[in-house]
Amino acid sequence: MELKQYLEQTANQVDALIYRYFGSACDDLGRASAHLLLAGGKRLRPALLLLAADAVNRGSSSDVMPAALALELTHSFTLIHDDIMDGDTVRRGVPTVHTRWDEPTAILAGDVLFATAFEFICLADVPDNAKVRATSLLARTCVEICEGQHLDMSFEKRDDVSEGEYFKMVEKKTGALYAAAAGIGSILASGNPSFTEALYHFGQGIGMAFQIQDDLIDLLAPPEVSGKDQGSDIREGKKTLVYLKAREKGLDLAQYRGDISPDQIRGIVAKLEELGVIAEVRQTAEDLVRTGIQRISILPDSEEKDLLVQMGEHFIRRSY
Amino acid sequence: MELKQYLEQTANQVDALIYRYFGSACDDLGRASAHLLLAGGKRLRPALLLLAADAVNRGSSSDVMPAALALELTHSFTLIHDDIMDGDTVRRGVPTVHTRWDEPTAILAGDVLFATAFEFICLADVPDNAKVRATSLLARTCVEICEGQHLDMSFEKRDDVSEGEYFKMVEKKTGALYAAAAGIGSILASGNPSFTEALYHFGQGIGMAFQIQDDLIDLLAPPEVSGKDQGSDIREGKKTLVYLKAREKGLDLAQYRGDISPDQIRGIVAKLEELGVIAEVRQTAEDLVRTGIQRISILPDSEEKDLLVQMGEHFIRRSY
Repeated sequence: MELKQYLEQTANQVDALIYRYFGSACDDLGRASAHLLLAGGKRLRPALLLLAADAVNRGSSSDVMPAALALELTHSFTLIHDDIMDGDTVRRGVPTVHTRWDEPTAILAGDVLFATAFEFICLADVPDNAKVRATSLLARTCVEICEGQHLDMSFEKRDDVSEGEYFKMVEKKTGALYAAAAGIGSILASGNPSFTEALYHFGQGIGMAFQIQDDLIDLLAPPEVSGKDQGSDIREGKKTLVYLKAREKGLDLAQYRGDISPDQIRGIVAKLEELGVIAEVRQTAEDLVRTGIQRISILPDSEEKDLLVQMGEHFIRRSY
Repeated sequence: MELKQYLEQTANQVDALIYRYFGSACDDLGRASAHLLLAGGKRLRPALLLLAADAVNRGSSSDVMPAALALELTHSFTLIHDDIMDGDTVRRGVPTVHTRWDEPTAILAGDVLFATAFEFICLADVPDNAKVRATSLLARTCVEICEGQHLDMSFEKRDDVSEGEYFKMVEKKTGALYAAAAGIGSILASGNPSFTEALYHFGQGIGMAFQIQDDLIDLLAPPEVSGKDQGSDIREGKKTLVYLKAREKGLDLAQYRGDISPDQIRGIVAKLEELGVIAEVRQTAEDLVRTGIQRISILPDSEEKDLLVQMGEHFIRRSY
């Protein structure tokens, strides 16, 4: 199977579950909790969990789909709370929860999804010891995501962020949930500990690469392709890897903070290309994915293993 | 053993664990998460969990203390988020987290404690099936607490809140976590299902009574006894049971909303006494506790069962 087809298929399954459980909320808080979930999404974390489970235990009929949904709920919870903190008003083409409702309702809606994620982990059709380990890992992961978001916010006020700190932030804020998705998939499918560890690190690496690619897309993709505002990270002075590597080469992107034109953005991109910044950042993402793929080479060969490799490659090739 | 002595002893044990795990946070988010936990508290939910566990399985040596701590973490998480929503600036004699730090940090600090609670449930020294059931119950409880807080906030804008709606709100906002404490204690100690159900309802009833008693203390206790501002619920126009029962008898407390003097508060209290409102509210709390005690009469007689009964009675006799 092609990755594209696999992702479409699992996204449809996840969407169906989301509609079943969250599509008919009849109270205000229930609707606020479901709002972002129902606005769509690529459902990449559930797909990673399912692929990891099948890669370590092919042909198992146990239903881990509720746990896959738990990962999407966790992701949605973090988005709702992050949007409040970052003051973002639009996400997935719809108003953010605190914009459509209000801040208190958005805090509670996030909390509800967070709690519901743990309920869904416990609904997977697997042995109890696997559920306990998955619960612990998801809980630890949520702590890391919060630490990552806190670090990211603290970067805004600082000019001396190091690459080491940047990687720590991305590892926690984005890498941790992909790591948990792959690791929990393996745990629930009774994967042996070395498979679980390999998948965990694979997920972490491709998750970090995903975020770095996101930053490249923000910089390079014309709005008509990405659907987003080109160069918004530069306008906001975000401490991305591009920012840090440019600074290393003597180009301070902070000077372009504020309202700059699309033409200026194209000029900055040309300068970054010339300095080799773009190539270095691409290489970093590529290395993370390569190392991740190397880690899962110990898995038995299977269609799912191939799809995992394709997924890693897709994370750094995608242009939107 | 006297209840007072038991509560002091367990509070010391819980405090010791809190200091061990949260006393030496070396980063900002860690300190914000620990802030309210370290400011003290009566640790009533952990005590209820421990008593319930011992009441269904005396002499068991399995360590459920991490789960008792999980209940306190959950309570602390809800307080941090509620304080943001309610705009409260002081709690337990210290500035609230969003006041001492900022709102984003307070949202994250609550999320961190929430996640950590699930980690601690999984650290209890009990069979995995018990941990899974406890995790599910705690997760469901957190959803209910959010629903209760949302209902409570929605009451502010409404004049037609019914007693039925009030009870639903108190059941979710305060009753649910006491219910979970007692129920989880029983689950972790392998209590039979009828014991678990009885303890769950006992916890729910005394938890609701606790909240009703809180409202009476707000109204009746002079500040030098309670350490709180007498009559603050009336000043804020809160839809308490006192408010609803007074309205039923033709006295609209909403008219006193705003800045009223201590003398006026004493006058209102006299009027409420005369109308029989205070007596009716007291009776409601008393009935909730009596019904709860009735539910746990099926437990085998033990010192812990006696302490549970004392705890229920304490909840409606306390004056601070």
